[in-house]
Amino acid sequence: MKNSFGNALCVTLFGESHGDAVGCVLDGIAPGIKVDVDLIQTEMEKRRGGKEYTTPRKEEDVPVFLSGVKDGYTEGTPVCLIIRNTNAHSADYSKFRDMPRPGHADMTAGYKYRGYEDLRGGGHFSGRLTAALVAAGALIEGALAGKGIRIVSHIESIGDVKDRRFDADHPEIDALNGKDFPVLDEEAGEKMKEVIRKAAEEKDSAGGVIETCVAGLPEGIGEPWFDTLESMLGHMALSVPACKGIEFGDGFGLAGMKGSEANDPWIPEDGKIRTASNHCGGIVGGISDGMPVIFRTVFKPTASIAKPQETLNRKTGKTEVLEVTGRHDPCIAVRAVPVMNAVSALVIADLLTQRYGNLWLGETK
Amino acid sequence: MKNSFGNALCVTLFGESHGDAVGCVLDGIAPGIKVDVDLIQTEMEKRRGGKEYTTPRKEEDVPVFLSGVKDGYTEGTPVCLIIRNTNAHSADYSKFRDMPRPGHADMTAGYKYRGYEDLRGGGHFSGRLTAALVAAGALIEGALAGKGIRIVSHIESIGDVKDRRFDADHPEIDALNGKDFPVLDEEAGEKMKEVIRKAAEEKDSAGGVIETCVAGLPEGIGEPWFDTLESMLGHMALSVPACKGIEFGDGFGLAGMKGSEANDPWIPEDGKIRTASNHCGGIVGGISDGMPVIFRTVFKPTASIAKPQETLNRKTGKTEVLEVTGRHDPCIAVRAVPVMNAVSALVIADLLTQRYGNLWLGETK
Amino acid sequence: MKNSFGNALCVTLFGESHGDAVGCVLDGIAPGIKVDVDLIQTEMEKRRGGKEYTTPRKEEDVPVFLSGVKDGYTEGTPVCLIIRNTNAHSADYSKFRDMPRPGHADMTAGYKYRGYEDLRGGGHFSGRLTAALVAAGALIEGALAGKGIRIVSHIESIGDVKDRRFDADHPEIDALNGKDFPVLDEEAGEKMKEVIRKAAEEKDSAGGVIETCVAGLPEGIGEPWFDTLESMLGHMALSVPACKGIEFGDGFGLAGMKGSEANDPWIPEDGKIRTASNHCGGIVGGISDGMPVIFRTVFKPTASIAKPQETLNRKTGKTEVLEVTGRHDPCIAVRAVPVMNAVSALVIADLLTQRYGNLWLGETK
Amino acid sequence: MKNSFGNALCVTLFGESHGDAVGCVLDGIAPGIKVDVDLIQTEMEKRRGGKEYTTPRKEEDVPVFLSGVKDGYTEGTPVCLIIRNTNAHSADYSKFRDMPRPGHADMTAGYKYRGYEDLRGGGHFSGRLTAALVAAGALIEGALAGKGIRIVSHIESIGDVKDRRFDADHPEIDALNGKDFPVLDEEAGEKMKEVIRKAAEEKDSAGGVIETCVAGLPEGIGEPWFDTLESMLGHMALSVPACKGIEFGDGFGLAGMKGSEANDPWIPEDGKIRTASNHCGGIVGGISDGMPVIFRTVFKPTASIAKPQETLNRKTGKTEVLEVTGRHDPCIAVRAVPVMNAVSALVIADLLTQRYGNLWLGETK
Repeated sequence: MKNSFGNALCVTLFGESHGDAVGCVLDGIAPGIKVDVDLIQTEMEKRRGGKEYTTPRKEEDVPVFLSGVKDGYTEGTPVCLIIRNTNAHSADYSKFRDMPRPGHADMTAGYKYRGYEDLRGGGHFSGRLTAALVAAGALIEGALAGKGIRIVSHIESIGDVKDRRFDADHPEIDALNGKDFPVLDEEAGEKMKEVIRKAAEEKDSAGGVIETCVAGLPEGIGEPWFDTLESMLGHMALSVPACKGIEFGDGFGLAGMKGSEANDPWIPEDGKIRTASNHCGGIVGGISDGMPVIFRTVFKPTASIAKPQETLNRKTGKTEVLEVTGRHDPCIAVRAVPVMNAVSALVIADLLTQRYGNLWLGETK
Repeated sequence: MKNSFGNALCVTLFGESHGDAVGCVLDGIAPGIKVDVDLIQTEMEKRRGGKEYTTPRKEEDVPVFLSGVKDGYTEGTPVCLIIRNTNAHSADYSKFRDMPRPGHADMTAGYKYRGYEDLRGGGHFSGRLTAALVAAGALIEGALAGKGIRIVSHIESIGDVKDRRFDADHPEIDALNGKDFPVLDEEAGEKMKEVIRKAAEEKDSAGGVIETCVAGLPEGIGEPWFDTLESMLGHMALSVPACKGIEFGDGFGLAGMKGSEANDPWIPEDGKIRTASNHCGGIVGGISDGMPVIFRTVFKPTASIAKPQETLNRKTGKTEVLEVTGRHDPCIAVRAVPVMNAVSALVIADLLTQRYGNLWLGETK
Repeated sequence: MKNSFGNALCVTLFGESHGDAVGCVLDGIAPGIKVDVDLIQTEMEKRRGGKEYTTPRKEEDVPVFLSGVKDGYTEGTPVCLIIRNTNAHSADYSKFRDMPRPGHADMTAGYKYRGYEDLRGGGHFSGRLTAALVAAGALIEGALAGKGIRIVSHIESIGDVKDRRFDADHPEIDALNGKDFPVLDEEAGEKMKEVIRKAAEEKDSAGGVIETCVAGLPEGIGEPWFDTLESMLGHMALSVPACKGIEFGDGFGLAGMKGSEANDPWIPEDGKIRTASNHCGGIVGGISDGMPVIFRTVFKPTASIAKPQETLNRKTGKTEVLEVTGRHDPCIAVRAVPVMNAVSALVIADLLTQRYGNLWLGETK
Repeated sequence: MKNSFGNALCVTLFGESHGDAVGCVLDGIAPGIKVDVDLIQTEMEKRRGGKEYTTPRKEEDVPVFLSGVKDGYTEGTPVCLIIRNTNAHSADYSKFRDMPRPGHADMTAGYKYRGYEDLRGGGHFSGRLTAALVAAGALIEGALAGKGIRIVSHIESIGDVKDRRFDADHPEIDALNGKDFPVLDEEAGEKMKEVIRKAAEEKDSAGGVIETCVAGLPEGIGEPWFDTLESMLGHMALSVPACKGIEFGDGFGLAGMKGSEANDPWIPEDGKIRTASNHCGGIVGGISDGMPVIFRTVFKPTASIAKPQETLNRKTGKTEVLEVTGRHDPCIAVRAVPVMNAVSALVIADLLTQRYGNLWLGETK
């Protein structure tokens, strides 16, 4: 349904980068979820521009709850939260209707909305809308944590520098706690920062991969068709700007494996059933098997770069050199970390709500 | 919505592998779509077991239209098609409730359905349900072809053998016409067959990657959130059994690229606008840009293998050696080719119907 | 979603009156619901033609479960059930494309499907499709009864003859048990039959009103917007052929009441809270209040009558006299009784599933 | 989907009466719809309290567009509009948790949200949320008018005073233009006002019926199942607070008619096809037949009355006399007029968008 996603718990996203506000409505949320303002602010902060490796655009980015929250708890009615846009430089974007930026939605937005779209700051296509997703997601992450479900992501690669991957059987998620630039291998992290710094110096940008782990998810979550756990997570993840791929467990590596290598044998452990390995990323038949759910998403290098590029001038019908000024991230993947946590939380909570009903996530008075 | 997918054009899937029938309902379909029985049979044949590189289970697999079709055309009312199950050997599956097969949905089905599930032949989780998807998809592929939209897939890799990828700017889709084992490089194809043969001999299985191209798609199809073209194709693809990843354009390769390399410059060509390269796979901002849409999906090696495996015996609480007999594909990826075409057609037709209305795909009397 | 209804529990309807079969898919159903074949057959029998006051078309109308049911229980996977069409006289319907019957969907079907529709027996618009709804509804009614929720309807009026209405506070639903022609006042029932007999003699038809009671529904079911209990029941009821209105509690009578008369005061009773009266029909603010839910639906007189009528001949462009032969009910309202029970059950079960999760309605092994 | 309604064009409602704001998101809206601020303000004014026959609560009620609108036109992206709550007297509502008002959602809200709900001013259940619906509806009404589709309502009855009904064949909708208290028969209107005045004097309230006409709707709109035109209009209408019934065409009157009386014969007129009468309210088989669509909705008397009423005190477990102070409408039906126009517009536009695509309602640059 276009700008909505989710069945039992549904998020509807709205806003333009340089309009009045971005925001979202969360419907189907349980009454009695504590609104953890600190957690929300922490996640917002991770996503926010203004830090060393991200865009210099600084905004307060404080989510305001217009509805659905009272006395620090969700009411069970739709939560509408908005984040005001206060720091927009709209003048920068005027020329892209004639000279659409390569790799950018200027052109496709025009195809779709036939000239009525707001191009300023990427309009409705802007990564800025993820601020609303992160706020909504953090609200849900708090509720999931109360049920023993934790969602953590790290930067798996930037350019050709790779972090360690999660140990799929026993992912070291605590090691990432409170990290500003979350990697498992700090040395790799320093090299990644160097790649980003260099890209920025060259007025260019770098791509990257984020790895996400959902730990503590009960067994039996997901559907055989079409709302498999992979499908639902994939749907949300692939709608995040710049995300161009997703893989679960060993992912594309499974193409080169034998069945005898890829199959995860069921074993007993501490009176529970788990698998001896986790090549499938905690999902079999579209349904959680009780092991950590692990997946990776790839983010293309930021399309907006200051480096001169050739592109079409629609007025002249010829290609010309375009120089894009303005504030841009040299590596969007870094800011995708809290976004992947947020969208995962929204998907997981939707599936849990379907299974256990729409009161389950909340507390009881 | 669980076993349904699509908004304006919605498919609902039902059936168990060893039940009476598998089938689906297509709702929202335009009146006046010619039912191309030959095309449907051709695609069904590609998916069907019984050929050299696939499972020896042979069934007639003829789809019967129970509703929505009259005098060779769709009526505009829901199309229900079913495929009878006539060749099932249910005795093979009795023991997997106690000893769930590694990598298989026996266990997770039990988590979800709490013992009421039909385990025979994989039940509702069986790849056999893709027969209904292929039949429905082929019906739609015919209608799309009438609008100049063609959907073609080839086997990009099996094990460590790789086919050429599509030339993303001018994919050579005609080269695949009528191929039984569709590859661009026949020599690679022979090597792939050798990998499959060897896996079968070893009572093991092989994984693979399928590459799909949607050519001729109009610009402006897809949504910025959450129903991006990537999200919709990804949702459907990731719900196909054994599919564990999807990537668009250069996909995970984009992580190692610079923005200046990954951006596709807009250029004029023959009075139209296209891009000089196609690293983004024909999708920018979630929306089609008029270039070929290209993506790859990875299929894990078939979980059911005859090779002895250790797994849990739930009765004894200990691991034991399990030998799985029965009919199984040494490489499920080969049969995924028509499935990826079908699910892509369903997604594309849904998005086109949303944009152009629910009469657009049909003919006018 | 067109031919689907329901969120957590969703029914998709398909079929044409004179096609191969009519049927439906129930998705989101809990595993472990006992399939009460006798109850289903009883409800089917109530709906079936061939009895004194209904159409002489007799069919076996035995629902066949193609999927989702095993060993007498639902599996949790989609239930597809079909009812074969075996007794169709298609020749009767050929002329209505040129001379559309007054009050009938011949014409509007043509507007919608542009000539591709199946007019035979009303095609997809036929009341025959309610056979599938009744079968699906009866399956659910059995599960609801296991939770103490009972759904019962009676004929409130035929023509100008009126039955007693339910005592809204303590509806006498047991009095209707096993009645073929369910009325509370048998004398009124005899007069109703007389009205129908007379209408049939005059080659005409009669309208009527059905009153439905849902007893034992837990408090808190329904949504404030837009899926109020009234909205959900209304949506389903108003999609049943010939239904042209619905009212809850005192319904249209509320227009003539004062607030002090219409308000239902909360009172204690046996340690529970109930209302002293039930003018609101058990629904306040769109949500069940624990009292019996009561509503009435009006069914217009059967449009197909043998009496000669003037209507347009589209070939000549002039009005002419049309005589409709074939098998028709003199009063469709009578057969609407099991249909209203069925659609109510589907709506109620959907809302309960949303609230309590998708395992709630089933048994546990 | 709970607080969302619509398929191709979807409205999501949020807010609490005494929270920060009420508002809604309109998703799926065409780009290029002119935002007719005057029309929106006129409709808002009709709904607004503060006039002679309605509640003395006066608010500015100016909708603010947070997204989706630029330079006076819709962009095609989600339109979020909010209306700030500035004139709330929250102290009035504190006691209703213990002593729930008869006929009011205080109690059922508690059942549903388990104590986390905001009771102030009715919270999320408040009629105040219709302000957002009216604003959204008026935006759409403007677009529909541009396509020749007009939606008009009048007060059909208050208490036992009845206005003339629309001439169903040629409804005199122009006669209602600009009327503050829209009736066809002014004399009846004066009597209605007298009924309201008297109810107010008695600290009581009155019920009423609203009749709505959709003129100029193309043929072929609506679905046979389940989204019939009656179902979709009924779903929306029955979710408006205090609405307890809806009937189409002759509605409940059809129960007393013969088929030969109720059928509307097709006739030629001015080269088009119409019906000689309009007992079916412009809808046959769930689908528009080109005649005016006409329906009536009943609104119960305002539940909040100043007159003392007995109700349960949950603390004492006994009934006591409750006196409700605060601002209340003596007759909510009057203010339902613009609400019924608005929700009808939203439904109609959704169905038109499904049929003609999501660009149809907008202008082309």
